[in-house]
Amino acid sequence: MLFLVRMDVRLPPSMPKEEADALKATEKAYSQGLQRQGKWPQLYRVVGEYANYSIFDVADNDELHTLLSSLPLFPYMQIHVTPLARHPSSIH
Amino acid sequence: MLFLVRMDVRLPPSMPKEEADALKATEKAYSQGLQRQGKWPQLYRVVGEYANYSIFDVADNDELHTLLSSLPLFPYMQIHVTPLARHPSSIH
Amino acid sequence: MLFLVRMDVRLPPSMPKEEADALKATEKAYSQGLQRQGKWPQLYRVVGEYANYSIFDVADNDELHTLLSSLPLFPYMQIHVTPLARHPSSIH
Amino acid sequence: MLFLVRMDVRLPPSMPKEEADALKATEKAYSQGLQRQGKWPQLYRVVGEYANYSIFDVADNDELHTLLSSLPLFPYMQIHVTPLARHPSSIH
Amino acid sequence: MLFLVRMDVRLPPSMPKEEADALKATEKAYSQGLQRQGKWPQLYRVVGEYANYSIFDVADNDELHTLLSSLPLFPYMQIHVTPLARHPSSIH
Amino acid sequence: MLFLVRMDVRLPPSMPKEEADALKATEKAYSQGLQRQGKWPQLYRVVGEYANYSIFDVADNDELHTLLSSLPLFPYMQIHVTPLARHPSSIH
Amino acid sequence: MLFLVRMDVRLPPSMPKEEADALKATEKAYSQGLQRQGKWPQLYRVVGEYANYSIFDVADNDELHTLLSSLPLFPYMQIHVTPLARHPSSIH
Amino acid sequence: MLFLVRMDVRLPPSMPKEEADALKATEKAYSQGLQRQGKWPQLYRVVGEYANYSIFDVADNDELHTLLSSLPLFPYMQIHVTPLARHPSSIH
Amino acid sequence: MLFLVRMDVRLPPSMPKEEADALKATEKAYSQGLQRQGKWPQLYRVVGEYANYSIFDVADNDELHTLLSSLPLFPYMQIHVTPLARHPSSIH
Amino acid sequence: MLFLVRMDVRLPPSMPKEEADALKATEKAYSQGLQRQGKWPQLYRVVGEYANYSIFDVADNDELHTLLSSLPLFPYMQIHVTPLARHPSSIH
Repeated sequence: MLFLVRMDVRLPPSMPKEEADALKATEKAYSQGLQRQGKWPQLYRVVGEYANYSIFDVADNDELHTLLSSLPLFPYMQIHVTPLARHPSSIH
Repeated sequence: MLFLVRMDVRLPPSMPKEEADALKATEKAYSQGLQRQGKWPQLYRVVGEYANYSIFDVADNDELHTLLSSLPLFPYMQIHVTPLARHPSSIH
Repeated sequence: MLFLVRMDVRLPPSMPKEEADALKATEKAYSQGLQRQGKWPQLYRVVGEYANYSIFDVADNDELHTLLSSLPLFPYMQIHVTPLARHPSSIH
Repeated sequence: MLFLVRMDVRLPPSMPKEEADALKATEKAYSQGLQRQGKWPQLYRVVGEYANYSIFDVADNDELHTLLSSLPLFPYMQIHVTPLARHPSSIH
Repeated sequence: MLFLVRMDVRLPPSMPKEEADALKATEKAYSQGLQRQGKWPQLYRVVGEYANYSIFDVADNDELHTLLSSLPLFPYMQIHVTPLARHPSSIH
Repeated sequence: MLFLVRMDVRLPPSMPKEEADALKATEKAYSQGLQRQGKWPQLYRVVGEYANYSIFDVADNDELHTLLSSLPLFPYMQIHVTPLARHPSSIH
Repeated sequence: MLFLVRMDVRLPPSMPKEEADALKATEKAYSQGLQRQGKWPQLYRVVGEYANYSIFDVADNDELHTLLSSLPLFPYMQIHVTPLARHPSSIH
Repeated sequence: MLFLVRMDVRLPPSMPKEEADALKATEKAYSQGLQRQGKWPQLYRVVGEYANYSIFDVADNDELHTLLSSLPLFPYMQIHVTPLARHPSSIH
Repeated sequence: MLFLVRMDVRLPPSMPKEEADALKATEKAYSQGLQRQGKWPQLYRVVGEYANYSIFDVADNDELHTLLSSLPLFPYMQIHVTPLARHPSSIH
Repeated sequence: MLFLVRMDVRLPPSMPKEEADALKATEKAYSQGLQRQGKWPQLYRVVGEYANYSIFDVADNDELHTLLSSLPLFPYMQIHVTPLARHPSSIH
């Protein structure tokens, strides 16, 4: 089941650079783990913004919330989820 | 080059059903042609809305505008385009 | 799997009263059928508005879109869907 | 009398983790008390957000405000309340 | 139980003047009936707009929705309801 | 001359509790003084929010601004003022 | 007593040109009458829009609403009123 | 003096195709006349929308409003104007 | 050339009172200087808000930006500028 | 390929003046380098705001994101990108 997810990151300006760097490294590893499992099949940068649009492929709403709320950057992100369905004109 | 595109369709209530059906059939054929050419690799329905989220893969902005403004339903759609870039955490 | 759905109805002022009444009667029968099947367990009127908030319980996104887009009033509604997950403080 | 309530939590990034944890534990106990009394019959997580949608069942507006403004997290929440009425198509 | 209600009226430009006048006369009579019963204790014009802010005093949400959805101008109004509670600094 | 006023209070999380309590006590005394003088005839809590809707009855715009900008909580409030006029259907 | 007023005009596309021209001529005469009386001391066009920003100088809210709701174009305008007070830094 | 101008075109669906085509041809000629005079030095299509972003170079606000309100499509456009100034980092 | 300017002031709660007072005194002197030169002919307080609506009369966009960005409170203000043109119904 | 980019700068009030000045100097040098290379052909100040509208001319979306995210002020800016296409009425 597919969902479009937009994530906007807002790190507090007072966060020390090392803390931010460590957080981003953990986030990257976490994200790539989910990508390899096929749960997070697409991840794109929004041009000009510290934000991404992603496609998630999960079993249900609970799994999606568990994955998103476990993101290391979750406390610093604004996330919006849009449920997707099959489009009748899609050839896939 | 990838773009996320959201299209919301608003047909005027006064449009006769046959005209609407013909328009939708032409739209479907046009869309599937672009999908087969790889220009419109993804097309999803937004759950509960007469709207879609799509990914387009085009050479440049001009090509994208030409493709979108040639949609048979273009006069009845509100379209918003978001340019996408490679994400540094993407494994692709 | 639960979703919160808000539906706002906007009938065109030019629609004849008989047509509107027939549409609403079909909508009511359709809605009550889904309620009896347990797919649409809750349906509330928003006070002062021609709108409702509903809870749907469906197998997946595709089923939800099929149910919503089959609503007799669908062409005259603005619908917004919010996916819900289990809350860790819920006693249910 | 039913109300739909949406609560969005925004803890200040400077709050120490122990203080946040203690606050959340108190919030959970308070919430489960109201759920057991039947005042807060439904509580759902909004997927991907530190937010919930809830149904409250109270005697009147004053009782609802007293319950909400006594939430331990109240100073850190944005709350929006929508009064609900019986829907003529509901089978309940 | 008190509610603040804002009503914005939008009559379709195509409505004949006699029909609009008749509707407004019925609306006035209906409104004054509720005012005399104490259900609609306050009614003010928003300066410069075809809109009003009102206070309603009703037994519950269902009664408020019944009163509002029975307004002769209801099909042509956008209505927003805000539930009010006693303020701890009020001297009343 | 009547005005509808909405006030939303946002105290900075860093304000010490004693300072906030003192400020609220001064605010209450100030508000009750104006209520007794008939300048602030109505004051209601918005259910679920640290906000109020009020009716002010003043001689002119300057008096209203003087009263509002002298509120002890003024530096921490977002205020919106709507001028009200007599409604032709009001029985008062 | 001064108010800033913004008026946006939206004539229905179906209105015959002669009717629109007659309405605009009446509007102009009405506006210039109020300007000569000193009630509408300033009237500016918003660049690029069929809209104006105006300053009104009236005795009270009721007079302002009477003047605005008597505008020949009132049924086709969206109007927003902002009450103004003396500014402590103004040299006037 | 430079201004950024965004124009969104909304033709009524009921306008006959010949009328729309004639209007667009007149618009194009008018626009190209201004471009040749140097008043409208830049004109870009917003990708995916029936809209443009333009730079105008005019003597003052009055000239800009005269040029914009004389656009053949003016009655069918929503226009927003942003005044621009020299940027201290610009090399021009 | 006239412009309508709205300025909203947001001083950080952590700014010491003496610093804020000194800043406001400098702002007042600066503003009154421009008023005396005729560049800032009108300055009004928005009732209930720490904000003003002003009319500026300047030679061009660059002069307006220079005047506004030199305001002592500029770093703490949100400013919105609307270019004004002569209105055909104005008697001035 | 052209893009319209709006950048709004928000420096934290707590940033020391020397740090802000150094950042702005680096930003200016970086911007002028891109202008000289023809990647950032236009840069305008939005009148009254700490913001700019710019035109970028780049090979593709990835290049644009690389340029923007390398701006020294990037962590303190809100950026919005609009892709532009050739306009059929443009004489260029």
